[in-house]
Amino acid sequence: MTVPQRVVVALGGNAMTGPDGSATPRAQREAIAVAARHVAAVVGLGVAVVVTHGNGPQVGNLLVKNELAAHVVPPVPLDWNVAQTQATIGFTLADELDAALAAGGLPHRTAALVTRTLVDPDDPGFATPSKPVGRHLPREEAQRFLDLGQDWEDRGARGWRRVVASPEPRSVVDAPAIHALVDAGFVVVCAGGGGIPVVDDDVAGRALRGVEAVIDKDLTAALLAREVAADTLVIATDVPQVQVGFGTPSARPLQRVSAGEMRAHAAAGQFARGSMGPKVEAALRFVEGGGRRAVITTLEHISDAVRDDDVGTVVTP
Amino acid sequence: MTVPQRVVVALGGNAMTGPDGSATPRAQREAIAVAARHVAAVVGLGVAVVVTHGNGPQVGNLLVKNELAAHVVPPVPLDWNVAQTQATIGFTLADELDAALAAGGLPHRTAALVTRTLVDPDDPGFATPSKPVGRHLPREEAQRFLDLGQDWEDRGARGWRRVVASPEPRSVVDAPAIHALVDAGFVVVCAGGGGIPVVDDDVAGRALRGVEAVIDKDLTAALLAREVAADTLVIATDVPQVQVGFGTPSARPLQRVSAGEMRAHAAAGQFARGSMGPKVEAALRFVEGGGRRAVITTLEHISDAVRDDDVGTVVTP
Repeated sequence: MTVPQRVVVALGGNAMTGPDGSATPRAQREAIAVAARHVAAVVGLGVAVVVTHGNGPQVGNLLVKNELAAHVVPPVPLDWNVAQTQATIGFTLADELDAALAAGGLPHRTAALVTRTLVDPDDPGFATPSKPVGRHLPREEAQRFLDLGQDWEDRGARGWRRVVASPEPRSVVDAPAIHALVDAGFVVVCAGGGGIPVVDDDVAGRALRGVEAVIDKDLTAALLAREVAADTLVIATDVPQVQVGFGTPSARPLQRVSAGEMRAHAAAGQFARGSMGPKVEAALRFVEGGGRRAVITTLEHISDAVRDDDVGTVVTP
Repeated sequence: MTVPQRVVVALGGNAMTGPDGSATPRAQREAIAVAARHVAAVVGLGVAVVVTHGNGPQVGNLLVKNELAAHVVPPVPLDWNVAQTQATIGFTLADELDAALAAGGLPHRTAALVTRTLVDPDDPGFATPSKPVGRHLPREEAQRFLDLGQDWEDRGARGWRRVVASPEPRSVVDAPAIHALVDAGFVVVCAGGGGIPVVDDDVAGRALRGVEAVIDKDLTAALLAREVAADTLVIATDVPQVQVGFGTPSARPLQRVSAGEMRAHAAAGQFARGSMGPKVEAALRFVEGGGRRAVITTLEHISDAVRDDDVGTVVTP
C-alpha cells in the first residue's frame, strides 16, 4: 500500500497514565514519553501527524480539587477542567515529542493548541446526562452537589457519582488553526479530551461559550480527521485488534473489514458501549465520511499500522 | 505616523479579573470580554495581533486547590498550574475575541497556543526564590510545605507565603508556531503567565522539561515581540501613562521618551519593582533589541496607542 500523507493519531487514557492507572504528574510524564516515541516513529515515516488524546483520570483529579477547595476558591466549570488537561497533557506531550523527534534526527517540532469543539445546545445528552465523571461519594456527601444542581447517580456499592452530558461533536472550532500548523510542518497536539465543549449563542454572528459536558474523544478524533483532511485515522487502545464474540468461545479478532461489515457487527451489539463501542463508531464515521482507512490497535503498533495493511483492525470504505 | 504591521499586546491581571480583583469564572469571563473588544479594535486597524496575558490570581487559586486536595489527589507542579491558566484564559479569550471580531465584521479568527518559555537552570532566581505566589498561611500550616522542600517566607502580620523562582525568559520555545499562525491570519493568544517555564537538559539534542517557577509576563512579552518580529509592543496596565516622581509633588507623566532617557529614569529607581518596574524594563528591552516602539497605557487606550503617537507612554530607540 502507499504510505498515507496525513494521519490523525488518537491516544487513549492508558497512554497518559501509569501501568496501574496512576495519574501523578510523574506517572503521566513517563507514560507520555513512551507514547511520544511511538508517535515520533509515525512522523519518521514521512507522514504529517495530528495527535489527539483522552483525559479521563486527569479531569477526575481536577473535579476532586474543585470539590475539596470550594470553601476557599471558586470552583470552575467542567469545560474549564477539560481546557486545563489540554494544557498539561499538551505541553508534556510537546516536550516529549520534541525530544523524540530530535533523537530521531527529524526536523519537525510540536505545537499544542487549545481546542474548542462545537456541540448543539439541544443535544439530547444535555437533557439526560449519562457520562460518569469524578470520584464516587457517599449519598450524604453527594447531596451537597445535587443541591447545586448537578446530576449524580446511585452507582450501588461504590456510592454516588456525578453524571454529565456527553454531546455529539459537531465541528472542531479550531480546525483551521490546526490545518495552518500542519501546513507549516508542525506535529500538532489538539482536541484533547474531545475538545472544550462550546455552544454558539448567536446564529448570525459568533458567540461561543463553554458548556459543562465532556465529548467522547474518539468521536472528536473522527471529526477532526475529516476536518483536517487526513487520509488515515489511527486509534490507539489496549488491544491489538477489535474482537467479535468478545469473551465467548467463538471470539475472533477482526483484521481487514469493510465499513458495511463493521456496521453490521456494531448493530448486532458486538462492541461495549463506553469502551470499544465509541472507537468502532469513530472508525466507521471516518471512513463513511470519506476517510481512506481507520485502524484500531495498540500504541506499540501505530507506526506499523500506518505503514502496513495487516496490522490491527483496519476499516476501509 | 505609519500604522504598525505586527503588534504584541500584553494584558495585565486587571484585564482578567473583576473590578474587585475577583477571579471567579464569571468575573474572569466578563473582564476578558471587555479586553477582547479592545483587542479586536486593534485588529480592526489592519494590524497582525499577538496577545499575551498575566495569570497571577488564577495560579493563586490553583495552588490553593493543590494544597487542599493533596490528601486525595496528587498535587501538580507549578509549571502545570501555569499551563492550566493558559488554557482557561486562552479559550475564554478566544471565545470572546472571536465574538468581538465577528461583531466588528472582521474575518480573523483566534487561536490559543500552549506556550513554553525556555529558562536557564543556572538562573540565580532558582538559588534565591523571591517571587511570592498563592495565599498567606499561618506558620504552623506553612511548615507542611517547608517540609516538602518548598520555600516560604515570613510576611509579617499576614502570615507566611510561598516564594518561587522568577527566572529570566531566554526564548519562547513555541515562537515558530506562533509565527506560523500569525502568517496564516490568526489572532494568536500565547505565552500566558510568561509561558510555561522549561529547561533543556540536553545541549546536543532537545530534552525540555517543566520547572517550578513563574516568569514575569512583561519580560516574556518583550522577548515574544522580538521573536515574532513585531514592530510594536503595547503593555496594557491600570494607568494611562508611566510617571516619574510617582507619589511626590513633582510627579509628572512620561509621554514620548527615548530608551536612553527611560534607562536613566529606571536606573534612578523611579519605577517600583514588581509593579511598573518590569513593564518599563520590558518596553526598554524591546526597543533596545530592535523594536520600533513600545507603549505603556490602559486597556481602553490600546488601539489609539497603536494608531497614534501621542497616547500613553511611548518608548522609542
